[in-house]
Amino acid sequence: MTDTPALAATPADLALYTEVKHFYAQQMHLLDDRAADEWAATFAPGGVFSANGLPAPAEGRAAIAAAARAAGERLDAEGLVHRHWLDMLTVRQQEDGSVRARSYALVIQTPLGGMPQLHRSTVCEDLLIRAEDGSLLVLERKVTRDDLA
Amino acid sequence: MTDTPALAATPADLALYTEVKHFYAQQMHLLDDRAADEWAATFAPGGVFSANGLPAPAEGRAAIAAAARAAGERLDAEGLVHRHWLDMLTVRQQEDGSVRARSYALVIQTPLGGMPQLHRSTVCEDLLIRAEDGSLLVLERKVTRDDLA
Amino acid sequence: MTDTPALAATPADLALYTEVKHFYAQQMHLLDDRAADEWAATFAPGGVFSANGLPAPAEGRAAIAAAARAAGERLDAEGLVHRHWLDMLTVRQQEDGSVRARSYALVIQTPLGGMPQLHRSTVCEDLLIRAEDGSLLVLERKVTRDDLA
Repeated sequence: MTDTPALAATPADLALYTEVKHFYAQQMHLLDDRAADEWAATFAPGGVFSANGLPAPAEGRAAIAAAARAAGERLDAEGLVHRHWLDMLTVRQQEDGSVRARSYALVIQTPLGGMPQLHRSTVCEDLLIRAEDGSLLVLERKVTRDDLA
Repeated sequence: MTDTPALAATPADLALYTEVKHFYAQQMHLLDDRAADEWAATFAPGGVFSANGLPAPAEGRAAIAAAARAAGERLDAEGLVHRHWLDMLTVRQQEDGSVRARSYALVIQTPLGGMPQLHRSTVCEDLLIRAEDGSLLVLERKVTRDDLA
Repeated sequence: MTDTPALAATPADLALYTEVKHFYAQQMHLLDDRAADEWAATFAPGGVFSANGLPAPAEGRAAIAAAARAAGERLDAEGLVHRHWLDMLTVRQQEDGSVRARSYALVIQTPLGGMPQLHRSTVCEDLLIRAEDGSLLVLERKVTRDDLA
């Protein structure tokens, strides 16, 4: 638990918290809406997406977009809709301005004509940085599936 | 994705974000607590609730309250509890002061003595306006079930 | 619904809202990460945790930590991971500075090598107070399971 932020909060913490939360909502919409390139653009150019459910990390926007595109095509072929929910977010600004964020992430899977089900329960650990225009970018994301932990 | 807000955030955006999130929590409590008239009062007098799971939109507070009351009576008759979860919210203030909000919404259904299950996974698109006292009201809500999409 | 806050929001309400949300995320991480003593320290020294799924309330940090430790050991023995999600939060600051918070809470349960499932759907009602350093503490928590309600 060394990464747990102190439990007292400043106004700057609270603004950052909401900003990250909004960023995640936007990012998940892009992923679930199959906007693979826009999704990849929410990562830094050299961003890395690693997960204990993947054989190897995806490094760089092209690889991240390709992975999202491939996943979307599989879902389309099977008639499935995925919704990614991230919450139970904690954020901690570091001295260099980067942000450590830890959240839980669920994947809700719904087949056409069927009932939704919990597909994955994971923990998502991000290192976020700022683009030149001040918006957030994911430099490193590590997703840990509970069923494989 | 033309409705996706820019990913950079201003303090006003963040305040609006939190306000809408709080509004939704209050609104869902009213619905799930069977406060049908109070739920309907969170819509504008001419508010419209449409959904791809409904035969026709509910227009106006009386129709919205009646639909909630009928749904609650069905749940009571079957011994079911519903909890509506809205999150992964994005908000975008428009020039006229109204707000476009897009979120994911889940319905969690629990039978008395049984296990909870995911009943619905949906996308909720709202057009929000301000009442005279400044509080938010839903002018238009469109709910799209993933299983019917 | 007498505890429902008014639907208009002030900047102070919004800051409090985000603060409580962040507090809950930190608190649930501690619980799910099996940091039983740190979890218990988010309650006031005389804090009380009561639930309609428990034979008796846990009173005081030692009892709250012991209950969390026992639950964690059961999960380990069965190869299960629990993730607690709290959201659909409403907050209301009272005149004495304490805070009434009402939220929905889910427990997501994932067996090693299996699929996640909804384990519990509950309503969580808290009375929160401030520690000397200004951080939040739970003085009273009441958790109501939907399947027992």
